[in-house]
Amino acid sequence: MSKRNIRADISYDGSGFCGWQMQKNGRTVQGDVEKALEKMHGFRVPVTAAGRTDSGVHALGQVINFRTELDSIPSDRWALALNSYLPGDVQALSSREVPEDFHSRYDARSRTYRYYLFQGPVPIPVYRNYALFVRKTLDVRRLNEYARCIIGEHDFTTFAVPRDSSRTRVRNISSAAFFMDGPFIVFHIEGTAFLWRMVRSLVGTILELEKQGKGPEEFRRILEAGNRQGAGATAPAWGLYLYKVRYDR
Amino acid sequence: MSKRNIRADISYDGSGFCGWQMQKNGRTVQGDVEKALEKMHGFRVPVTAAGRTDSGVHALGQVINFRTELDSIPSDRWALALNSYLPGDVQALSSREVPEDFHSRYDARSRTYRYYLFQGPVPIPVYRNYALFVRKTLDVRRLNEYARCIIGEHDFTTFAVPRDSSRTRVRNISSAAFFMDGPFIVFHIEGTAFLWRMVRSLVGTILELEKQGKGPEEFRRILEAGNRQGAGATAPAWGLYLYKVRYDR
Repeated sequence: MSKRNIRADISYDGSGFCGWQMQKNGRTVQGDVEKALEKMHGFRVPVTAAGRTDSGVHALGQVINFRTELDSIPSDRWALALNSYLPGDVQALSSREVPEDFHSRYDARSRTYRYYLFQGPVPIPVYRNYALFVRKTLDVRRLNEYARCIIGEHDFTTFAVPRDSSRTRVRNISSAAFFMDGPFIVFHIEGTAFLWRMVRSLVGTILELEKQGKGPEEFRRILEAGNRQGAGATAPAWGLYLYKVRYDR
Repeated sequence: MSKRNIRADISYDGSGFCGWQMQKNGRTVQGDVEKALEKMHGFRVPVTAAGRTDSGVHALGQVINFRTELDSIPSDRWALALNSYLPGDVQALSSREVPEDFHSRYDARSRTYRYYLFQGPVPIPVYRNYALFVRKTLDVRRLNEYARCIIGEHDFTTFAVPRDSSRTRVRNISSAAFFMDGPFIVFHIEGTAFLWRMVRSLVGTILELEKQGKGPEEFRRILEAGNRQGAGATAPAWGLYLYKVRYDR
């Protein structure tokens, strides 16, 4: 029996999950998706994702793939079929058949994350799990002076967690910018790949330096120093969204 | 000892509450606010609100008032003081002293509600508790033809729940309009007061008539008929926000 390789683009509210990756204790997105597939197949079907998001991190465009022998469901109807087995906080947006060797993680050419900041005099409860509240009036043009330092190929050791076991901490960032979106300031960053918690560390450091009035030159110095001690506090998970994953094919 | 009358503007995420009004079972906003005040005073302090929102309904500008003998807290610091005793899903935005006879409910001159619709090909999990997902592509100009029928003084019996015990079902609506806001279509309605579940019934009926291609003339006929049978299904609570309350003084 031939198996189809199905790609599904999924979205989730990270608030109720201990991240993407299956673990012994706690609910995970991978766990819920594999449970849905198990109900449909009668046996366990492993799922791969482009980005293994942390606990509390949301996704608007996570990409997963899995192999199936179920012929009764057309490839583009897999999203709908999955949704009838998934809870409301994780849903498939679309689905299609991809080449047999397509791998959602290894084939990803770039990942885009967004970090949402909500600026106001006081925190608004409905935003509390979806954007970081910041009291100070931030200037987007000024924030973009920091963002520009990130663009290009850099060793991001400063923004890596100490126990990061990546072979190299060099990453290539093709775009990084802040923009206004209604009551939010959004940090948009695209790169081939990211170190664990790197986006949150970048955001936390920029906010801290700006608060201290240190400026983008100091940020560049910290980035180039490659010393974790230079980084500010890691920004919380709930402001972060895996926004988009790009592939060549 | 003289008591000050404190007005506080508060905001809450209705998802975790069984509405505003205290009840035997289930968590309520009134219950949480009165618990916070009890911790500060050592005894129960009753609180009045402008609008008794239903279970799941959010508030961006609910207004409450209560009387206090605590002299240690300046009137404009009550918001901050309350927040240190309140959970993250209900927060005070501002506070100030008001005349001794100010009553947040009876003195309200108008209330403004907003209803959020999220239009897309598929539901997005992060919006699921904050906007009603609608699949059809709605036309804001067309929706506003319905909204215009609501403006003015009308008997809203069609949009009242059968057990509504109001003395009169005539209400005066000063503005009603739909507008786009990012990925949302927002219904904005201001009136002196509203019948119980009236806004949700208006929204549900407009969506149903538009889906069936019936048009604003049919909506006007249903409104004027004063017959509950004419109304569509009541739109769900999670799309509704108490947005603003106005006072003469």
